[in-house]
Amino acid sequence: MPRFAGIPTFMRLPNVTHGSELYDQMEIAIVGVPWDGGTSNRPGARHGPRQLRDLSTMIRAQHPVSSVRPFETANCADAGDVSINPSDLLGSMENVTSVFSQLKADGILPLAAGGDHLTTLPILRALGNKNAPLSMIHFDAHTDLYDGYFGGTPYNHGTPFRRALEEGILDGSRVIQIGLRGTRYDLDDIEFGKKHGVTMIMIEELMERGPDSVMAQARDLVGDMETYVSFDIDFLDPAFAPGTGTPEIGGPDSFTAQKLVRGLAGVNIKGADLVEVSPPFDPSGNTAWVGASLMFELLCVMAPMVAQARK
Amino acid sequence: MPRFAGIPTFMRLPNVTHGSELYDQMEIAIVGVPWDGGTSNRPGARHGPRQLRDLSTMIRAQHPVSSVRPFETANCADAGDVSINPSDLLGSMENVTSVFSQLKADGILPLAAGGDHLTTLPILRALGNKNAPLSMIHFDAHTDLYDGYFGGTPYNHGTPFRRALEEGILDGSRVIQIGLRGTRYDLDDIEFGKKHGVTMIMIEELMERGPDSVMAQARDLVGDMETYVSFDIDFLDPAFAPGTGTPEIGGPDSFTAQKLVRGLAGVNIKGADLVEVSPPFDPSGNTAWVGASLMFELLCVMAPMVAQARK
Amino acid sequence: MPRFAGIPTFMRLPNVTHGSELYDQMEIAIVGVPWDGGTSNRPGARHGPRQLRDLSTMIRAQHPVSSVRPFETANCADAGDVSINPSDLLGSMENVTSVFSQLKADGILPLAAGGDHLTTLPILRALGNKNAPLSMIHFDAHTDLYDGYFGGTPYNHGTPFRRALEEGILDGSRVIQIGLRGTRYDLDDIEFGKKHGVTMIMIEELMERGPDSVMAQARDLVGDMETYVSFDIDFLDPAFAPGTGTPEIGGPDSFTAQKLVRGLAGVNIKGADLVEVSPPFDPSGNTAWVGASLMFELLCVMAPMVAQARK
Amino acid sequence: MPRFAGIPTFMRLPNVTHGSELYDQMEIAIVGVPWDGGTSNRPGARHGPRQLRDLSTMIRAQHPVSSVRPFETANCADAGDVSINPSDLLGSMENVTSVFSQLKADGILPLAAGGDHLTTLPILRALGNKNAPLSMIHFDAHTDLYDGYFGGTPYNHGTPFRRALEEGILDGSRVIQIGLRGTRYDLDDIEFGKKHGVTMIMIEELMERGPDSVMAQARDLVGDMETYVSFDIDFLDPAFAPGTGTPEIGGPDSFTAQKLVRGLAGVNIKGADLVEVSPPFDPSGNTAWVGASLMFELLCVMAPMVAQARK
Amino acid sequence: MPRFAGIPTFMRLPNVTHGSELYDQMEIAIVGVPWDGGTSNRPGARHGPRQLRDLSTMIRAQHPVSSVRPFETANCADAGDVSINPSDLLGSMENVTSVFSQLKADGILPLAAGGDHLTTLPILRALGNKNAPLSMIHFDAHTDLYDGYFGGTPYNHGTPFRRALEEGILDGSRVIQIGLRGTRYDLDDIEFGKKHGVTMIMIEELMERGPDSVMAQARDLVGDMETYVSFDIDFLDPAFAPGTGTPEIGGPDSFTAQKLVRGLAGVNIKGADLVEVSPPFDPSGNTAWVGASLMFELLCVMAPMVAQARK
Amino acid sequence: MPRFAGIPTFMRLPNVTHGSELYDQMEIAIVGVPWDGGTSNRPGARHGPRQLRDLSTMIRAQHPVSSVRPFETANCADAGDVSINPSDLLGSMENVTSVFSQLKADGILPLAAGGDHLTTLPILRALGNKNAPLSMIHFDAHTDLYDGYFGGTPYNHGTPFRRALEEGILDGSRVIQIGLRGTRYDLDDIEFGKKHGVTMIMIEELMERGPDSVMAQARDLVGDMETYVSFDIDFLDPAFAPGTGTPEIGGPDSFTAQKLVRGLAGVNIKGADLVEVSPPFDPSGNTAWVGASLMFELLCVMAPMVAQARK
Repeated sequence: MPRFAGIPTFMRLPNVTHGSELYDQMEIAIVGVPWDGGTSNRPGARHGPRQLRDLSTMIRAQHPVSSVRPFETANCADAGDVSINPSDLLGSMENVTSVFSQLKADGILPLAAGGDHLTTLPILRALGNKNAPLSMIHFDAHTDLYDGYFGGTPYNHGTPFRRALEEGILDGSRVIQIGLRGTRYDLDDIEFGKKHGVTMIMIEELMERGPDSVMAQARDLVGDMETYVSFDIDFLDPAFAPGTGTPEIGGPDSFTAQKLVRGLAGVNIKGADLVEVSPPFDPSGNTAWVGASLMFELLCVMAPMVAQARK
Repeated sequence: MPRFAGIPTFMRLPNVTHGSELYDQMEIAIVGVPWDGGTSNRPGARHGPRQLRDLSTMIRAQHPVSSVRPFETANCADAGDVSINPSDLLGSMENVTSVFSQLKADGILPLAAGGDHLTTLPILRALGNKNAPLSMIHFDAHTDLYDGYFGGTPYNHGTPFRRALEEGILDGSRVIQIGLRGTRYDLDDIEFGKKHGVTMIMIEELMERGPDSVMAQARDLVGDMETYVSFDIDFLDPAFAPGTGTPEIGGPDSFTAQKLVRGLAGVNIKGADLVEVSPPFDPSGNTAWVGASLMFELLCVMAPMVAQARK
Repeated sequence: MPRFAGIPTFMRLPNVTHGSELYDQMEIAIVGVPWDGGTSNRPGARHGPRQLRDLSTMIRAQHPVSSVRPFETANCADAGDVSINPSDLLGSMENVTSVFSQLKADGILPLAAGGDHLTTLPILRALGNKNAPLSMIHFDAHTDLYDGYFGGTPYNHGTPFRRALEEGILDGSRVIQIGLRGTRYDLDDIEFGKKHGVTMIMIEELMERGPDSVMAQARDLVGDMETYVSFDIDFLDPAFAPGTGTPEIGGPDSFTAQKLVRGLAGVNIKGADLVEVSPPFDPSGNTAWVGASLMFELLCVMAPMVAQARK
Repeated sequence: MPRFAGIPTFMRLPNVTHGSELYDQMEIAIVGVPWDGGTSNRPGARHGPRQLRDLSTMIRAQHPVSSVRPFETANCADAGDVSINPSDLLGSMENVTSVFSQLKADGILPLAAGGDHLTTLPILRALGNKNAPLSMIHFDAHTDLYDGYFGGTPYNHGTPFRRALEEGILDGSRVIQIGLRGTRYDLDDIEFGKKHGVTMIMIEELMERGPDSVMAQARDLVGDMETYVSFDIDFLDPAFAPGTGTPEIGGPDSFTAQKLVRGLAGVNIKGADLVEVSPPFDPSGNTAWVGASLMFELLCVMAPMVAQARK
Repeated sequence: MPRFAGIPTFMRLPNVTHGSELYDQMEIAIVGVPWDGGTSNRPGARHGPRQLRDLSTMIRAQHPVSSVRPFETANCADAGDVSINPSDLLGSMENVTSVFSQLKADGILPLAAGGDHLTTLPILRALGNKNAPLSMIHFDAHTDLYDGYFGGTPYNHGTPFRRALEEGILDGSRVIQIGLRGTRYDLDDIEFGKKHGVTMIMIEELMERGPDSVMAQARDLVGDMETYVSFDIDFLDPAFAPGTGTPEIGGPDSFTAQKLVRGLAGVNIKGADLVEVSPPFDPSGNTAWVGASLMFELLCVMAPMVAQARK
Repeated sequence: MPRFAGIPTFMRLPNVTHGSELYDQMEIAIVGVPWDGGTSNRPGARHGPRQLRDLSTMIRAQHPVSSVRPFETANCADAGDVSINPSDLLGSMENVTSVFSQLKADGILPLAAGGDHLTTLPILRALGNKNAPLSMIHFDAHTDLYDGYFGGTPYNHGTPFRRALEEGILDGSRVIQIGLRGTRYDLDDIEFGKKHGVTMIMIEELMERGPDSVMAQARDLVGDMETYVSFDIDFLDPAFAPGTGTPEIGGPDSFTAQKLVRGLAGVNIKGADLVEVSPPFDPSGNTAWVGASLMFELLCVMAPMVAQARK
C-alpha cells in the first residue's frame, strides 16, 4: 500500500482504543488533542492532529542516524483523539487529563499531537503530581509562563507552565526552556520563571552555543528524573513552520530542531507532545510535515527507552 | 487616495468612537465583532472584521440600481470592534450586548460584521426585549435553532435563535429563514422552529420561486414591525463564499443574494449583521469581497430609511 | 467527538476490512481507489480518497429533503483503499477488479471514491459481464469514449467506457452520459458512442431541459435493469470544483448536481463512484467537500434500495 | 506531445514573428500585451499573457457545438508579445498601436490577450479611424467610460472607451456594453455614454432577457459594420474568474459567457481582445483557464469569418 | 482588545494626521507609501503598507534583547499613507517628498513602509541635500544603482541610489550596501557604485564575516553623520520572504537580519524604510510578518536615539 | 522586452529544434522532460519544465561571483521537451534516451529539466556505456538506490542509480551522493551503494564539513573522468523548496546549494539535470525559482568548459 493511500493514522500505525485486544500490548500511544480553546490569537490548531496524521503517513520505518526502528522497538499505536468540546474549556481539559491518566495507569507512554499549547497543562496534571513534580525540556519561542493576558479564565495557551508551576506538578529548578524570542508584553513571565528556578535559553544563546552544548546542559539538568518533553512548532522559524498561531521570526531551522530532539536520548521521558500546528495558516502543508518528522524523532528516543525498561 | 491605500476602515468611513465629537452625528454604525467563540467546527471568523474592512475599501459611493449614495444619505461611520476575549465566552457576549445597547440608546442604527453567528444573540439581547420582541429576516444555510450539540455551554453558533426565541426577544411568528439546506443531525431544530411559528424557506423553494417572490413574503410577514436582518455568508454556495466555517453545497449565487437584500427596501430595520466570514479558509479573499459588497447592499436599504425617519 | 476530530474515515463510519467480524453485516462499502495512473494531463487524483475522507467528516446524519438517514437505513462502512501500485497499471487494475468482485460475491453494494476515471473500468469488469451487461448513468464533461490518445496502453482516464463497451460489460443502448462539453480532438468518441447506442446529453440540452426532465429520461432508459452510476467531479463547472485534472468551463452548479443525483431514486443501482477529485489543484479543499456531499447524496438513494431489497 | 508539455505558446500554435517565412500565411494573430500600466487598483495583469498561454495549452482542436476547427479553418499563430515598458505609459501605448497597425496593414486579424483594459485603446487607434469609426461589442462589469479618476495621465484602465469616443475611433451609436454592474463613483460615465449613444445592458437586464436576446440586439446594432469585440474577464462573477483587478459580485457564469461569445457568429469582427486576467490574485489558475477557453470561443467565430472572406 | 481585533494601524499605534492635536507630540512617524510605480517585474508592493499594518498588530511592546519599549520611549504614531497616483509617477514622487519634507521640518523622525524601492528616492530628496548629503546603510540583494533598464523614465525601483548619488543627496563614500547577490545584467551598477566610493558587501562576504563584523564596519563608515537606513525585504532569502517582486536565492535568514538591524544602535538615523513587501506573491502572509518584525527592530534603535536627543 | 513578457523559453533562450538551422551551432541544450511516471508518492513533476521555464525568465545574463556570461560564453538554447507518454513508461524512457543520444552524437552538452528522478536513468543510458561508465556527483536527500518498492516495473524515481550501477553505465567508485537524510525503509540501498563503492555524504557530514570541503572531495573523486551531475531539488530543505514529491526536513539552504554547484568548476561534465520540481505542491512558485537559479549556476560551470574545449 503506497504511503498516500489508506485511512491516515499516525505513521500508518494501527488504531488502538481502550478496551480493544491490542490495547494491552500498546507501549507508546500517539494521542491527538484537536483543540484550540486556549488560543489567544490565530486559531486553527484544532485541525492539527488531522493534518499531522495525513502528513505522517510519509514517514518510513527507520531513523537515518540512530537506525532505530521505533515501530519494531516498541509497540506503538494511534490511540485516536481525546474528545474535545470547543465550547467547554474546563470540560475539555478534564477529558485530556482523564485520557492521559488512564494511559499512565496502564503503563503506556504517551506522545500527544496538539492542539494548542494549553493542551500540555491537563497532560501534566495526569502525568505529574505534587509529591513527584516532573522535570521538563521545553522547545518554544515563548515561555508560556504568562498570567492570563485577556482576563477570563486563567487558562490559555500562554499560561500552561505558570499554572503547572503554581500547582506544583512541575519542578521549576529542573525545567529548561529553549529557543525563547520574539517581542514581549513585559518581563512578568521571565521573572516568574526565574523565581521558580527555570532555566531559559534565549535564541541568541542557542545560536551561539549550538544544539549539542544546550542539550548536554538539558540532560544534566534533568538527570534521571521523570521528564516531560514539550515541543511547540513555533520554536522553528516561520520559514520552516509557517502554519502556527503565534510565529516569531529569527528562529532555528529544522536541522537544529532534529539535533535537539536527538539530544534527548537517555532522558527519562514520561510523556511528550508536539503542539501548535495550525493547518489553516499553512498553504503548503509543510508545517505538519515538519511536525510529523519531529514526532518520529521523539519516537526514536522514546522507543529504545521503553525497550530498555522492558528488560 | 486610491482605494488600496490608507488605514482600512469599513468602506473608508471615519473611525468614530464613543465620546468623540463625531459620535453625536453618527446615524449608522458599522461595528466589528472579531469572534469565533461559538464556532463548533472550523474557526477563523474572529479574523472576519479585519478582512472585511480590507476588502470593503474597494466599495465606491453609489448603488448601481437604486442610485442610493448611503454615505451621503446617512451619517455612517466605522465604530471599531467590540472588545472580545477569546477565553471568556460569557464576558464577550456581555461586551457585545453592552456596545449595541449603547448604540440603541443613542439612536444609532447598527450594522455588525462578524464573527461567528453566536454574535447575533447578544446583539438581539441589546436590540430586542420581551415586551417588544423583534421580527427577523434571516439568510442562512442553517436554522441555527439547535440546542447545543456538544454539551458545555448552551451558546454556540448553531444555537443563537433557539436561545433568542426561548428568551422571548424574537417573535417566531414573524421570523423567516431563507436558504436552508445541508445535511442534518435530526429534525429537532426544524420542529422547534415550527413550534414557534418560524417560516422556513428551504433552498429548493427559493430556487423555485425566485428572490422576488420570497422577499414579498418576507416583507408581508414582518410588515412595519421592528425587524432584525441577519445574513450568514454561508447562505451562498461555497463557490461564491468558500471562506466560512460550515459551507453547504447547492446554495445560491451572489446575484440572488443581492436581489434578496435589495428586497429589504421598506422593511423597518433595527439592526443587521453579516457573519461567518472566515479568512483562513479563503485563499483568494473573495468571500470577504462578497461580504463587504453585501454590507454595502444592506447600507443602501438602511440609509434611506434613516433619512426618511429623520424628517 | 466534534466533526473535525478523530481518524478520518469516510463519513466517520467504522473501518471494516475483509475478515473482520463487522464485515458480514456490511451492506454498503465505501472504497477508496487512490490512483491516477490513467491521468493524461494534470495528476493528483491519487490523493482524492484521502481528502474526500477528510472533508466527508463534516457530513451529518440525515438528508435535508428526503430525510433518509443512510447510516441507519443500511449498514455502511469505510472498507479502506484498494492496494494500488503507481508503477504497475495493469496490476493495479487487477487489484481493483479483485476487490470489487469480492464485494459483489459477498452481496455488498460498493461506492467507490477515485482516483481518476480509469478506476471505473476495472470496477465494471467486477460488476458487469458479457451475459448481463450493465446499464450506466454517467455524469461527466467528457464521454471518456476515446481510443487512447497518446499511444502506449489502451488504458487511460479518457478510454474506460470505450473499453467497457468493447468488452461487452456495458450495454450502450442503456448508457446515458449527461453534461458533455468542452473542446474536442475530433468526433471519434461521439461516433463510437452513437454506434453503440449511447444517449448523450450535451450541456446545452441539460441547461435547456433541466435536471428533472433529464433524469426522467435516464430512469426510463435504464428501467429496472442493473445500473452503474459514475460521477466525474469535472461534470461541475470549475468554479464549483476546481480541483480536478481536466476542468471544462460552462458546467452546471452544485444545486443541479444534487438534483440529478436525487433523481436516481428508484434506479436499480449495482455500484457507483465519484472520481477525479485532485487535491493538489484545489487550494481551498472545496472540491473534496462537493465530492463528499455528492457521495452522501448517492448513499441516500442507495441505502433505501438496500433496505427495500432486504425485506 | 501531451498538452502539459512543451514551450507554451497560445493554444500550442507556432510562434510566428514579423519577417519569418510563416508570417505571410498568418490570417489570425494572437498577440500578448503584458501590461498593467493603466491599473488603478490591484495590479498583476502584466502577467496575464504568460498564464493564458500556459493554460491555453489544454485547449483541443474542435468546438463542441459548432464543430469549428479554428486552427484548420484559418491560419492561426502566436505572434508573441508587444514590447512593453512598465515605466513608460505613452511609449508602451505607441508600441501596442504600432504592432496592431502592422497586423492590419498586412491583413491579419488580431486577437489580443491582455493586459489591463487600457490595452484596448491603443489597439482601437490601430484598427479604427475617424473616417470609419468602429462598432464595438463589449463584455464587462464596468463601462470604462470614466474620465481619469486619480488625476495624472488621462489614460488608465477605466478610461479607454471615453478616450476612444472622444477621438472618434469608436461610433458610440454602434457600441453595446453588456454586463454592467458594481458600485459606482457617480453617474458621469453613464451620462457620457448616453450622450454618445452607447447601448448599455445592465446585469439585471442580461439576467432577465438571457444571452440569446441580448446578442440578437447586439448583432442588429452593429449590422455588417466593422466591429471590435472586447471581453473583460471581470464580466464574469468572481466565483468564476477571481483573478482580476476589479471584481464585482453578482455577475454571470461561464456558460452564459460562452453563449454570448457564440452569439457573435456573423459579426464583421476586425479585432478582439480578452483582458484583465491577473494571475497573482488567482491561486488556482482557473481564471486563466476561463480566459483561454473564451479566447478559443472567439477564434471559433473569427476563423470561419476569415475563411469566408478568403473565398 | 486582542491583537487580531480593531482597525489595523501600524503596531496598533494611534493614527495621527497633520493638523491633529496629537501631531505636535509625535516624535516618530510610521508612514505608508502604497506604491509600485517603479516596479520593473512583478508588481504588488502597492499593497505592502496595508498588509504590513495587518501583520504588525501582532507586535507586542518590548524588545526581547535590548528590553527597549519603543512606544513608551518615544512618541510613535501611524501617520497614514502618502497619497499616491498609480498613473502619475512624477506627481507621486513629489507627494512622497512633500510628506517627508514636512516631517523633517517638524522634527519628526520617519520610518517608511513601502512600496517598491523607488520610494526611497523621493524620501532622500526630502531628508538629504547637496550641502549635507546623507550617509546610508542599505540592506538589499541588489545595488539599485542601475541606469534605467527599460528606457522610459529614469525612475524605477532599480535606479533610486544612482539618481540620489547623481543628485548629490547621498555621499557615496559613506554608503554601504549589504547582502548583494543574484544574477546581473552587467557590471555597470557595480562600477558606478565604485566610482562613487560605495562600499559593497556581497552575500559571500556577509556569510563569511557574520553580521557583527559587517555592522562594526558600517558603524565606522557612517560615524556620527546623518544616516538613512533602507531595508529591502528581498535582502532575505525568499524562503523567509517570498512575497517580493525580485527575489534572489542564497540570501540570509531572519535571525541574521535581526542582528544586522540591532547593529544599527548608536547610528545617527535620520530616516529609515522597509520596502518591497508584495502581498500578492505571498500566500501565507509571512513576508509581511518578517517586514513588520524588522520595522519593530528599527523602531527599537530609533526610539532610544530620539529619547537621547530629547534630553 | 521585460522579463515577464514573451513566450517563456528556458532563460529566454531561442527555441532550437533538431533540423533547424540554429541546431548546428548549439553547444549546450536545455531539455525539458515533463514526466512523473516514476513518482511513487506525490505526483506533479511532469509540470516541472513548464514552471521552470516560466520562472527562469527572471534570470539575467551574468554570474555575480564568477562573472561568467554563459549565454555568450557558449551557444545555449532551449531544445524543447522530450515527447513523453504518461501511460507508457518504457516508451517514454526510450524517447528520453533517444533525444539525449542524438545530442551526444551531435556533440551538444545537455542540461535536463525534470521530471522526476527516474528521468536520469534513460539520460545515463544515452550518455554512458559499459565500456566507459560515467562518474557522478549527485545532490539529493535520497540515494535513489532502491530496488523497486512497490513491485511492478523495476523503474521508479527511487531506483535509477541502482539500475544504472547494475547496467554498468555508472562507475560506483566514482559516484558521490551528497545531502542524504530522511527516514528510511531499511539499509538495503545503503548496502547496495557501499557494495558498489559509492561515496555517501550524509547531511550531518555536509553540515559539519561545509560545502567547500565536500566539493574538494568530489572533485578529487571524479578527477578528469567524464562526469554526470544530478541535482534533485529535494536536496534542499523544504522551507527552500517545498514543491517536490518527497521532501525531507533538516536539509541545506540555497546558499549552500549554490556553493556546492560552484564547486563543480573544473569537473569534466558530460551532462547534468535538475529534477523533481513539482509545481502543484508549491503555492508560491519559489521552488521553480530555486530550480531555475541552480540551472543557471550549472550553466555557469558548463559554459566555460565548453568554451575551453572549443579552443
